[in-house]
Amino acid sequence: MRAVQLVEPTVVRLVDIPVPEIGPDDVLLRVAAAGVCHSDLHVMHNPDRIFARPVTLGHEVTGSVADVGSGVRGWAVGDSAIVHLCWSCGQCRNCLAGADNVCLRGGRRAQPPAPGLGPDGGMAEYMRVPARFLVGIDGLDPVVSAPLADAAMTAYHAIRNSGHALAPGNTAVVIGVGGLGHCALQILRATTATRIIAVDVDAGKLADAVNHGAHETVSAASDTVAAILDLTDGIGAQAVFDFVGNDATLRTAAAGVAPNGVVQVAGLAGGRVPIAAAPRDGVGWPWGASLRMSYGGTRTDLVACVALARDGHLRVDCERFALADALEAFDRLEAGGVRGRAVLVP
Amino acid sequence: MRAVQLVEPTVVRLVDIPVPEIGPDDVLLRVAAAGVCHSDLHVMHNPDRIFARPVTLGHEVTGSVADVGSGVRGWAVGDSAIVHLCWSCGQCRNCLAGADNVCLRGGRRAQPPAPGLGPDGGMAEYMRVPARFLVGIDGLDPVVSAPLADAAMTAYHAIRNSGHALAPGNTAVVIGVGGLGHCALQILRATTATRIIAVDVDAGKLADAVNHGAHETVSAASDTVAAILDLTDGIGAQAVFDFVGNDATLRTAAAGVAPNGVVQVAGLAGGRVPIAAAPRDGVGWPWGASLRMSYGGTRTDLVACVALARDGHLRVDCERFALADALEAFDRLEAGGVRGRAVLVP
Amino acid sequence: MRAVQLVEPTVVRLVDIPVPEIGPDDVLLRVAAAGVCHSDLHVMHNPDRIFARPVTLGHEVTGSVADVGSGVRGWAVGDSAIVHLCWSCGQCRNCLAGADNVCLRGGRRAQPPAPGLGPDGGMAEYMRVPARFLVGIDGLDPVVSAPLADAAMTAYHAIRNSGHALAPGNTAVVIGVGGLGHCALQILRATTATRIIAVDVDAGKLADAVNHGAHETVSAASDTVAAILDLTDGIGAQAVFDFVGNDATLRTAAAGVAPNGVVQVAGLAGGRVPIAAAPRDGVGWPWGASLRMSYGGTRTDLVACVALARDGHLRVDCERFALADALEAFDRLEAGGVRGRAVLVP
Amino acid sequence: MRAVQLVEPTVVRLVDIPVPEIGPDDVLLRVAAAGVCHSDLHVMHNPDRIFARPVTLGHEVTGSVADVGSGVRGWAVGDSAIVHLCWSCGQCRNCLAGADNVCLRGGRRAQPPAPGLGPDGGMAEYMRVPARFLVGIDGLDPVVSAPLADAAMTAYHAIRNSGHALAPGNTAVVIGVGGLGHCALQILRATTATRIIAVDVDAGKLADAVNHGAHETVSAASDTVAAILDLTDGIGAQAVFDFVGNDATLRTAAAGVAPNGVVQVAGLAGGRVPIAAAPRDGVGWPWGASLRMSYGGTRTDLVACVALARDGHLRVDCERFALADALEAFDRLEAGGVRGRAVLVP
Repeated sequence: MRAVQLVEPTVVRLVDIPVPEIGPDDVLLRVAAAGVCHSDLHVMHNPDRIFARPVTLGHEVTGSVADVGSGVRGWAVGDSAIVHLCWSCGQCRNCLAGADNVCLRGGRRAQPPAPGLGPDGGMAEYMRVPARFLVGIDGLDPVVSAPLADAAMTAYHAIRNSGHALAPGNTAVVIGVGGLGHCALQILRATTATRIIAVDVDAGKLADAVNHGAHETVSAASDTVAAILDLTDGIGAQAVFDFVGNDATLRTAAAGVAPNGVVQVAGLAGGRVPIAAAPRDGVGWPWGASLRMSYGGTRTDLVACVALARDGHLRVDCERFALADALEAFDRLEAGGVRGRAVLVP
Repeated sequence: MRAVQLVEPTVVRLVDIPVPEIGPDDVLLRVAAAGVCHSDLHVMHNPDRIFARPVTLGHEVTGSVADVGSGVRGWAVGDSAIVHLCWSCGQCRNCLAGADNVCLRGGRRAQPPAPGLGPDGGMAEYMRVPARFLVGIDGLDPVVSAPLADAAMTAYHAIRNSGHALAPGNTAVVIGVGGLGHCALQILRATTATRIIAVDVDAGKLADAVNHGAHETVSAASDTVAAILDLTDGIGAQAVFDFVGNDATLRTAAAGVAPNGVVQVAGLAGGRVPIAAAPRDGVGWPWGASLRMSYGGTRTDLVACVALARDGHLRVDCERFALADALEAFDRLEAGGVRGRAVLVP
Repeated sequence: MRAVQLVEPTVVRLVDIPVPEIGPDDVLLRVAAAGVCHSDLHVMHNPDRIFARPVTLGHEVTGSVADVGSGVRGWAVGDSAIVHLCWSCGQCRNCLAGADNVCLRGGRRAQPPAPGLGPDGGMAEYMRVPARFLVGIDGLDPVVSAPLADAAMTAYHAIRNSGHALAPGNTAVVIGVGGLGHCALQILRATTATRIIAVDVDAGKLADAVNHGAHETVSAASDTVAAILDLTDGIGAQAVFDFVGNDATLRTAAAGVAPNGVVQVAGLAGGRVPIAAAPRDGVGWPWGASLRMSYGGTRTDLVACVALARDGHLRVDCERFALADALEAFDRLEAGGVRGRAVLVP
Repeated sequence: MRAVQLVEPTVVRLVDIPVPEIGPDDVLLRVAAAGVCHSDLHVMHNPDRIFARPVTLGHEVTGSVADVGSGVRGWAVGDSAIVHLCWSCGQCRNCLAGADNVCLRGGRRAQPPAPGLGPDGGMAEYMRVPARFLVGIDGLDPVVSAPLADAAMTAYHAIRNSGHALAPGNTAVVIGVGGLGHCALQILRATTATRIIAVDVDAGKLADAVNHGAHETVSAASDTVAAILDLTDGIGAQAVFDFVGNDATLRTAAAGVAPNGVVQVAGLAGGRVPIAAAPRDGVGWPWGASLRMSYGGTRTDLVACVALARDGHLRVDCERFALADALEAFDRLEAGGVRGRAVLVP
């Protein structure tokens, strides 16, 4: 079968490999679609990432069940399913509590193994998936559903963990309204009555943001903090979702969040913000506010995203590419030319 | 009456002033004791603090009701009471929700007015207190109860907001086991079954920490992070309470907290920590962890601290000074020579 | 001024009385509108209710500030405001925590005093209101806003306390879609992505329910439990809101709620349901489910309802009556002939 | 091997059967101890329970790993472990969220399969256990640890779900201080600073209750409700844990709980309480209070109980019986003659 692999650091190729074999607890998935994510670019450009190569990329994957291991219950050939991002151990304290996105098996700093970033992923015709990482999507279009696995679930997880900050009358800021951010806007509209301010450098994305549910838009080229404070009577936003995570966006988050507010950082740009234990530093952190590094989501979060899509609340904008055009899709994403999410269709 | 006042920036004096007059919603409190806090040193040394002077210092105050305004219900002469730290507006969104410690009236970065740091405080024979900032302490020794108003309440607030992080089998780190920290140890022991690691530079305080409930002690002179990770199977502590808040302690917190863990910063040393939106920076922030700047506490938190003291769970170590010896108490605190809390007794 | 008073048990009259005097902490409100509620009928028909008479009825009140007591901050003549339902003490444990709807001053079974059901209410040209029970509504039409004070706030409080039960993919049942219920539908749509089933005896109200956000409707004349289980794969609804509260609706709630689900009872029809401590009784209570008697709401809940209305999420259907036609409005409500809420306009 | 089996309705025998075979995902446990529970008596006396017979009884089981299936990770021969009570599906919504005690596979009213009450349990020399239902107990005495699996975990689950009700200064009532109740007392003491009132019919158990942490005791022969109200200023207890669940105890719970309080029912005596949707019925349910039927616990709850035992916070009183004396143990439990928990040791 054909597959898109990272064959050595920084080198991605379309290759021909055997269909994977499955074990007793696995399912063989005939891939319907695989989303392209900034994380894919990230691993291509960072040769020091330690997982073995070659590896088939693709961690946003949907498909139909083509074969079922002997020990698997609850899945039959033909079922439509999506693959969970976090291939967690299922046994550590965090997994038992349902917090499988911060599985402890790999240690304190590790992410749980993700398909396409360790085990083989779904940019291929077939994919092996342990059955417990599958969630059913019957009734949904599998192609536009693939990005639910990361873009939507990561946004949902950050929002679900922001609790009381999203009450009616409060304000949420979404920084970066691309793949993850445009999901966040829809999830906020569907699950809260909070007012939403979208922030981005791209005027086109800001225009889309209004369609996805933003009440206000602020160009990242302007004085973002001043605009946020102006829209919130000087108090700031009760929740800030940073899907970029560079120095500038983190500072906007810190200086724009309200007392007792919540900043959720899900962007991986590697920025830093000084959090100062005193009220008068330059960044302007208010009392009672908190900042959290949010990663991925739990299986429960993925189930919620599937439900949101099924009920018409969440629709990921997708641009389709053939599997053979994967490298073009990567280039377009890197150049910032994809609206919503690029999806490979084998 | 005699009072300890900040008469001009950096100058504190024992002065003679009239007994304060009270309005219809006020109570006149005959002061039993007033705690001495690092915040008092802080305002003495920072001439740019903007509140008017002269001001009577003292924000940890207990006493007995000496007079009652015409509009006051529920208080009678002779009642024993403690003064809440946060003289909040009672009308903003945060106040209505019970979060009066982050009252919004003063704006995004302001603390609510605190007696002794704006309105006149309790280092005096008498003090005017709006009735709604009083909490009853009948049955408690008012002298050792004064530090409940800040040292204990601030610790309690940080702990109460750490929720799921304090489950049995988890670990909490308390950095700085002086005035606030030695309260935190007792509160953690009384309200959770979490294992507690105390961290301090002072060997004597670490010895006391064991009596106050710490299971393990770590000298801040050692490799604190390594010690915390060693005691937690490399995973880190689910909760870290930083009652110092300088660069070093904040870095310990960031590098010692577990995935999905909580760092509560209540120390005012003005340190900074870079929170990086990527998993491989030097500081070592794990996924899902959050950092919160905790300030003071709510009236509910103060009520809880009074209950803890009444039920024998919380006992503040106090060293007593006469009001006339206030300056000596300040010097001793500054030199690090007070175990527990210094208390002025008029 | 003219006022609608309960002059003796079961006797309501339009009377002429002096404009009320206000104290230093009060505001005089020129009434814009006062909603008519089933509670008004309830007190008219139950001569054993113990509050003093005559009393001016009306506990859903909006108006503009006509005079301000000498000790009041933050309100000026001309401000538009709504009156909170729960005139709580502000000092008990529950009040301090923001749970003023279950103020403890009156004792374990008492409700906090409500205007119109103790102190004089708002079915009059003017009303005295202690300033801390006012919430601003500038920008809203005061007439249609009056029912926010009870019909909307009571629904919101029940929904806000149902937490995790209202996740995407879950189901909520609203029993009784009149005054409170039609608010609940809109609040659920605005603040959750839960699927909503409306249950009522009245086909016209069920037709309206769809416009207010219900996804499914079930006639209370049918086998309601079977219909709920059929719509939920036999598992039941994660949340049930019972705005009727008679024997039949409580049994529907108990037999239709899912494991770990939540039943919130806000209806006052006086029904009873046997909750059995075993899994095989007739009523069919599932494991982990809970039932709560929800009363009124907090000031925070009222603020949230005002925000929902201001942002276009919540619109109470109102039928207007002149103050002089109050008795006709009562009769119409009793006969079930009011859609949404009857509102008196002085 | 020898095993205690329910061979037909109401008939229990000591039998000789083969050592069970294990599958690839199973562990063979050499049983160290198996607790005897009122549930065992319940299934013996209720011939209409629908699971197949013969079945080996015993759902509180500890032991050491004797053999490991080919697909099992993380367990080795010799490891010491305890068996989780809820053999849940791992795939339904509730399981994914960590709420495996209310697994939905069996339907709305079903409990998840429990060993000894469906699959063969642990009153035998060996037991087959799917690996994911094991939790490690290295360092604990396996004999006294067996009751952690139900008596302690069920108590812990009820307590953990009572959230804000257990703040300092609040009161918790524990009704029934036998097997589950004496665990509840210790767990409340270890994880909260709430004041505890123990209620029981047995004076000896009330005397023990003080040793286990109760602050007050009330004989169930007295006017229990009056005593609870007297100890709580007439307000009632913020949390009530009913480990009996008959008509009388449920009425005590309803009439003794405070406004906004929580009643957790974990007793299976089949009682009923009328919850009335009005404030003036005979039972006396207060506003905002809730009642929940609590069942078993999650794997996370079991892990927490193991941690509490390991840290010295939780010690189950055990009376040991040889496996051959199982029937005597059953008789003693039925007669109310066991203090703490009876445990069979093969």
